[in-house]
Amino acid sequence: MKTLIKNGTVVNSTGTATADVLIDGERIAAVLAPGSTLLGFDVERNVDTVIDAAGKYVIPGGIDAHTHMQMPFGGTEASDTFETGTRAAAWGGTTSIVDFVVQYAGENVLDQYHLWHEKARGECAIDYGFHQILSDVQDSSLVAMDELVKEGVSSFKLFMAYKGVFLSDDGQIVKAMQKAATNGSMIMMHAENGSVIDLLVQQAIEAGNTTPYYHGLTRPWQAEEEATHRAIMLANLTGAPLYVVHVSAKQAVEQIAIARDRGQNVFGETCPQYLYLSLEDQLGASSDEWGSFEGAKWVCSTPLRSKAEGHQHHMWQSLRTNDIQMVSTDHCPFCMKGQKDMGLTDFSKIPNGIGSVEHRMDLLYQGVVDKQISLERWVEVTSTTPARMFGMYGKKGVIQPGADGDVVIYDPNGHTSIGVDKTHHMNMDYSAWEGYEIDGHVDTVLSRGKVVIDNNQYLGAKGDGKYIKRGLSQYLI
Amino acid sequence: MKTLIKNGTVVNSTGTATADVLIDGERIAAVLAPGSTLLGFDVERNVDTVIDAAGKYVIPGGIDAHTHMQMPFGGTEASDTFETGTRAAAWGGTTSIVDFVVQYAGENVLDQYHLWHEKARGECAIDYGFHQILSDVQDSSLVAMDELVKEGVSSFKLFMAYKGVFLSDDGQIVKAMQKAATNGSMIMMHAENGSVIDLLVQQAIEAGNTTPYYHGLTRPWQAEEEATHRAIMLANLTGAPLYVVHVSAKQAVEQIAIARDRGQNVFGETCPQYLYLSLEDQLGASSDEWGSFEGAKWVCSTPLRSKAEGHQHHMWQSLRTNDIQMVSTDHCPFCMKGQKDMGLTDFSKIPNGIGSVEHRMDLLYQGVVDKQISLERWVEVTSTTPARMFGMYGKKGVIQPGADGDVVIYDPNGHTSIGVDKTHHMNMDYSAWEGYEIDGHVDTVLSRGKVVIDNNQYLGAKGDGKYIKRGLSQYLI
Amino acid sequence: MKTLIKNGTVVNSTGTATADVLIDGERIAAVLAPGSTLLGFDVERNVDTVIDAAGKYVIPGGIDAHTHMQMPFGGTEASDTFETGTRAAAWGGTTSIVDFVVQYAGENVLDQYHLWHEKARGECAIDYGFHQILSDVQDSSLVAMDELVKEGVSSFKLFMAYKGVFLSDDGQIVKAMQKAATNGSMIMMHAENGSVIDLLVQQAIEAGNTTPYYHGLTRPWQAEEEATHRAIMLANLTGAPLYVVHVSAKQAVEQIAIARDRGQNVFGETCPQYLYLSLEDQLGASSDEWGSFEGAKWVCSTPLRSKAEGHQHHMWQSLRTNDIQMVSTDHCPFCMKGQKDMGLTDFSKIPNGIGSVEHRMDLLYQGVVDKQISLERWVEVTSTTPARMFGMYGKKGVIQPGADGDVVIYDPNGHTSIGVDKTHHMNMDYSAWEGYEIDGHVDTVLSRGKVVIDNNQYLGAKGDGKYIKRGLSQYLI
Amino acid sequence: MKTLIKNGTVVNSTGTATADVLIDGERIAAVLAPGSTLLGFDVERNVDTVIDAAGKYVIPGGIDAHTHMQMPFGGTEASDTFETGTRAAAWGGTTSIVDFVVQYAGENVLDQYHLWHEKARGECAIDYGFHQILSDVQDSSLVAMDELVKEGVSSFKLFMAYKGVFLSDDGQIVKAMQKAATNGSMIMMHAENGSVIDLLVQQAIEAGNTTPYYHGLTRPWQAEEEATHRAIMLANLTGAPLYVVHVSAKQAVEQIAIARDRGQNVFGETCPQYLYLSLEDQLGASSDEWGSFEGAKWVCSTPLRSKAEGHQHHMWQSLRTNDIQMVSTDHCPFCMKGQKDMGLTDFSKIPNGIGSVEHRMDLLYQGVVDKQISLERWVEVTSTTPARMFGMYGKKGVIQPGADGDVVIYDPNGHTSIGVDKTHHMNMDYSAWEGYEIDGHVDTVLSRGKVVIDNNQYLGAKGDGKYIKRGLSQYLI
Repeated sequence: MKTLIKNGTVVNSTGTATADVLIDGERIAAVLAPGSTLLGFDVERNVDTVIDAAGKYVIPGGIDAHTHMQMPFGGTEASDTFETGTRAAAWGGTTSIVDFVVQYAGENVLDQYHLWHEKARGECAIDYGFHQILSDVQDSSLVAMDELVKEGVSSFKLFMAYKGVFLSDDGQIVKAMQKAATNGSMIMMHAENGSVIDLLVQQAIEAGNTTPYYHGLTRPWQAEEEATHRAIMLANLTGAPLYVVHVSAKQAVEQIAIARDRGQNVFGETCPQYLYLSLEDQLGASSDEWGSFEGAKWVCSTPLRSKAEGHQHHMWQSLRTNDIQMVSTDHCPFCMKGQKDMGLTDFSKIPNGIGSVEHRMDLLYQGVVDKQISLERWVEVTSTTPARMFGMYGKKGVIQPGADGDVVIYDPNGHTSIGVDKTHHMNMDYSAWEGYEIDGHVDTVLSRGKVVIDNNQYLGAKGDGKYIKRGLSQYLI
Repeated sequence: MKTLIKNGTVVNSTGTATADVLIDGERIAAVLAPGSTLLGFDVERNVDTVIDAAGKYVIPGGIDAHTHMQMPFGGTEASDTFETGTRAAAWGGTTSIVDFVVQYAGENVLDQYHLWHEKARGECAIDYGFHQILSDVQDSSLVAMDELVKEGVSSFKLFMAYKGVFLSDDGQIVKAMQKAATNGSMIMMHAENGSVIDLLVQQAIEAGNTTPYYHGLTRPWQAEEEATHRAIMLANLTGAPLYVVHVSAKQAVEQIAIARDRGQNVFGETCPQYLYLSLEDQLGASSDEWGSFEGAKWVCSTPLRSKAEGHQHHMWQSLRTNDIQMVSTDHCPFCMKGQKDMGLTDFSKIPNGIGSVEHRMDLLYQGVVDKQISLERWVEVTSTTPARMFGMYGKKGVIQPGADGDVVIYDPNGHTSIGVDKTHHMNMDYSAWEGYEIDGHVDTVLSRGKVVIDNNQYLGAKGDGKYIKRGLSQYLI
Repeated sequence: MKTLIKNGTVVNSTGTATADVLIDGERIAAVLAPGSTLLGFDVERNVDTVIDAAGKYVIPGGIDAHTHMQMPFGGTEASDTFETGTRAAAWGGTTSIVDFVVQYAGENVLDQYHLWHEKARGECAIDYGFHQILSDVQDSSLVAMDELVKEGVSSFKLFMAYKGVFLSDDGQIVKAMQKAATNGSMIMMHAENGSVIDLLVQQAIEAGNTTPYYHGLTRPWQAEEEATHRAIMLANLTGAPLYVVHVSAKQAVEQIAIARDRGQNVFGETCPQYLYLSLEDQLGASSDEWGSFEGAKWVCSTPLRSKAEGHQHHMWQSLRTNDIQMVSTDHCPFCMKGQKDMGLTDFSKIPNGIGSVEHRMDLLYQGVVDKQISLERWVEVTSTTPARMFGMYGKKGVIQPGADGDVVIYDPNGHTSIGVDKTHHMNMDYSAWEGYEIDGHVDTVLSRGKVVIDNNQYLGAKGDGKYIKRGLSQYLI
Repeated sequence: MKTLIKNGTVVNSTGTATADVLIDGERIAAVLAPGSTLLGFDVERNVDTVIDAAGKYVIPGGIDAHTHMQMPFGGTEASDTFETGTRAAAWGGTTSIVDFVVQYAGENVLDQYHLWHEKARGECAIDYGFHQILSDVQDSSLVAMDELVKEGVSSFKLFMAYKGVFLSDDGQIVKAMQKAATNGSMIMMHAENGSVIDLLVQQAIEAGNTTPYYHGLTRPWQAEEEATHRAIMLANLTGAPLYVVHVSAKQAVEQIAIARDRGQNVFGETCPQYLYLSLEDQLGASSDEWGSFEGAKWVCSTPLRSKAEGHQHHMWQSLRTNDIQMVSTDHCPFCMKGQKDMGLTDFSKIPNGIGSVEHRMDLLYQGVVDKQISLERWVEVTSTTPARMFGMYGKKGVIQPGADGDVVIYDPNGHTSIGVDKTHHMNMDYSAWEGYEIDGHVDTVLSRGKVVIDNNQYLGAKGDGKYIKRGLSQYLI
């Protein structure tokens, strides 16, 4: 299959080019000055398909480096399977995800790794890689870290919260970091002080404060700032690179900025919900003073933060200044019915998570329209940096010869309405983004050279997506 | 003329690609997956020249955004003409310079602009653009700023030092900045407190402290830090973007970093001399306690800083953290005989300047070898960012279809020895870099598709270089 | 004259004591445990006067270290003479002022110093010292600095604004600072960038923006922050201690805090107007969008700052954290009629200044009531620190044997209403503090052992006040 | 007993006074202008004792707010009893200590409190108060906190290290802080990350790195900085005031400074060993590369820090800038023979602690001689601030009527040589300060009016010291 995307504006993270993109099989074969001929050779006539991208952006496919498909959690399972979740991703212009292999305390890391391959194999619409969660840092886990790096899993996620489920204590974290410092892998961190949060949650429940709004109140910014700083200091001690997931508090960003200014390899990821949504939104969905259960739709961790305190404003600024390097979704969907409603009388029983894998590219593009970020920065934070951060660059995250034919044609004159009855292909009975309107549209999506979305139709198939064997991070200084 | 550069490693600022580069006429026509055919078409057979770059880096030609060819200064003139200086640049892998039109106080800006065109036209070996110096900010100068933006001069340099020659007072600076904020141009600043320096110089001379070493002692870091902060604050007040030239003090970098962290468009340039050379070096060339006149070789402003105070160490770190965005040379050469020796008995009479235009690409590559910066960052700070910063990106600073065929083939297995009897094509009777050894070599240089350097031979001609009509900065957030 | 103040709560800057204070002649003779006898000796029976201070605070008399009595300025003269101004001060519990000898550019420093002695001698109600203003830093001025230190003038004020009137350029400032670094005196700085302000004022007037409100808009915080940082850096270069007068912008405070954290002798003074009054207040006095001429009442420099930007909030915090060390008034009163109205059609013609010398102790005490500062801190910022800062401690600023009998008995259960028809003894036809209500009252004031205010009566006389020959600062670290 | 101390220079924290001090019974009765008479009454003739302090400093007795007399720890007990330790304190000019009631995990707080009273009652040479250690934060401990505040124990110490012995987890810390925020008490914190340290110690021992030098290497500054920041953030969350004990790392100081700049009630204590001694000293006592067992003399926690990294330099600066507020000893002595040698083959078995209670006043006075701090600051950091910080001011920490007659007469012309065969009254078989020479001398010490040290003789008796019932902190802003 040979495809020529012609007349588009190719956007990369440093600027744009008016150029044609030739895809031969699964790979990009050439980027050419526009026009039908090369040295007299008529390129257009020698391809199978020609896509005219005049007036549109031609960008590397989105990479969502933080998803949790069919993740078992809190007595239920994230409602998107690898099949439904990756298909929704494709709809939204995302052509790669990096999902998390879950190891709960007591389980064996490599067993879990193989189990996750079984879950995903043959199911995905787009390419997928894995990070590995380490919930307790057993001696065998440290050995497994070296194994996994060879398998293309070069990043390991630890938790400073969720005691008895995910939490590693600081000594365990140091052990994993010492290993990462020697094998070159990346430590990812859920940075919230679980011990403090568990206490505040318990006190809230005991006081009868049970609505979803209290979820946010019991996870204050201090708990995030503190854990972020702690993780940075442990990384400083060991020399490991550190990637802080789902940063939502401006004070946590400041800690990351301080570390980066002194040259430490510390990185921060935020998510669309921390750029757009707020604690006030969550409360405001109700007329009750302390909110109604509808707030459960936006129960996620880290929690939504107060707009009045300026977190969202600061987060956009941090995206501009590169104090935050990239945007993932932390896609972890649960339905209101049968899942979120487990916490109807106790917010701490609500499964934590928001589904956004389908909307990340659109929501961030809206940031371009709103002049929050530049066009180039859009591509950088959604594709190029994720690829570099997690060892996929060259294959992914860039439009250049040799790269996979993961390309999105995005129409700045199109429009996208988000809502369960509108654009919504995730397996959820509600949308956290209901009513959001986007001044742009994902027209066409190619995954390794195959058109999977075009003209508002899904043309791909289950199993199109292949495992991405990742290398070490290409973003370290 | 059609040229294929094959089998090389194309380096851009986010990563590398194994790719062939096809140049057709003056422009890059395509970047292709390596191999002799494209869709069956034999590219290699259809070009005039094939350059095998196997094992070598293929990079966008260097852009030196701060040079002063044949600049009249201090009763003499910089010793490199546009002809000799740009030819030396080409030898060193630099294919574009941005030089400065000088307006001294009382002169008319547009007159000077036209005069400079006359000086450069038909003389240059490589492409050249202009910044405009504004020495006093007359009403007519403010009008001229709009004119010049249309002419492709989108950046204006002001001085906080050199009273009676270049210096603008703060009110004048604000006026120019107000204009820049409306027409989108960039304010460049020589940030040193001239009033303080003039006093310290006078006191030193009166005390009989006349050797070149006192040049540095009378321009202390406080004078640079102060002026840098002041410029930032005036820019903050007016909304103008600010580019601080030749940053040498770590404390000045810190001020830039603070401003950038709050999202202000403030940028910093450093030069090879501030990365490698030091006040101790300047003194150490002599056995006298206060140095000999040989120190005049390194008299430049801002001055070399003390290694013991950590400026050089901090400057490399800042290059890594992007608190400093790019590296130019401030190329302003003077011979020891007949020029520098004007200050034999009074350091303040020594023409200020160091010549480095030939060695910037090599010296920075050595930073890659020494693991100070990454390969990608080398390309970014020497070419991609200069292009973006000063409105040339797309044409310059990147290897992509449509860009000018400004390409350097750099051999990481080559070697370069610097010295007046070795690599030295600048019109100077000494080298500030005598004895420096580089673990790399500029093999081939193409300027708009024409090979101008190859196999240690200059193949170009006077007048090859054309004027670059620049746009507005593409680096603003 | 022997006076016993009994049963009061003596407040000093570290805490309180229930103690009696015995004044014998002009000095404090003893501080005693309360009770009528000492080792069997009946103290109370052996004094001339007994004042019962039960339930009241006994504090060292207030020291206002920044006043401008009968200062010639802008074609007029401050409306309080040494006589009227010091009497008003006494009414408000202030027993010492430090006023400014004015040297305008071209005048001779020592001549002016002697002239000011003539103005004040025999006129004052309370003790007075002098700072010396240096408007141009002539060689003879540098010599005079040594002379003046011997005369008890150990502090020299420079201006970074008011070109042609007061302004010193940076080289001149450095010269004065070099001298201060050798003779141990203090440099005081009016830190605003005059060059920028002059331009903004000119542009405003040219645009027809002439109401008093524009006074604040044309003196933006950047102009203060910049000059503050610049002064700090020049002090850092020379080693001189620096005292920044009338700090009003929170960003200027931050610069002072940074310098102090690194151990530099930098100090900040604020004034009641920057703690309580705001730009919004100044505007709000009118229903016009850009304010009416009534705003002239609050035209002072530095200007009132925006409450919405948080300056007042931050200033109180800085008083608590000791980033600001003390509170003076910058008392510089002008009447609306015949003085302020010189600027009826041009705000730049309004004489700059607010009168507060009478109300400082009360206004700051209200800060205690409002829990902004502690009782001890009230005494520290209004008396003890001013004494230490300017070389008067031991004689002034503390209640201890040997100190001058400058004592105020303050009633926390009293009340004070401020306004032209209420408490108002300053020679002004309006009050900047009209309507302010204070939950406390100055009951009795002793100046060097003589009761000058008691029972709402002035009992002193013109000429009671003597010149204070000050020593070097006792506050340096 | 009536005593007159005449002709001395009374030093308090804001300055000095030439004054006589009259003590009547246990309290100061008056501070008088020098001379034999008061209003004609001959004071000197009416007292029992006259001490001539001409040429000497008269200061409030030292307060050491951090001692561990006969503390059970690590299978042994601190070698000074309340008797020997407080007597040594008196020798050194310290007239009050605040010791720690130890509650180990599982023990009952109030039981321990009563037990400690039994230990100290009738044993002490000088007055003593108690802080309460909370090792696990049981529900009953929270109740006890309220009780103890009434008993005069208004400060509670928690540990972030020593798992299974002292350590509280973050949730427990928050619980205690919530209580402190409501009852006004102070939280004291041993701020080191025990989890990380335990791992590093284990790894060192496993690697055969067993000498005392590794004690410091396994407690890196990151572990202290991290815990300090964490404690600050938990205090920020709860509103509790926080006092960080034995700060030794400059980075920890920086965290305290940041918190203080934003107005948080955070305080830092350092100890003489962190001002004078270093990791290099500890190592240098031996010719072995990794040190000999002699290094055990200086095994304490937090550990001595590297001089090359600048910790000592920064700590003195912080004392000057008030980023560190006071100096205690953390007196916790162990003999080399029979105690420290428990760790002969395993540094982790060495009881942690250094004995300095006798030398604190002298060592800090040497800082005055060396121009590190001012005379006033000496009194402030050793007496006035400890009194204010821990609710004793008025009775202790100041020379004023009504205060306890705790007075030291210090001779700046005297000399003190420290060493086991010289000045050494602590119950230890070595001195951590062997060879230190002090340019001053404790001449006379009065404790509640009784001369206990004079003419190099101890004149007091066991049981002289009484329990100090403390109030809430008087240092909060």
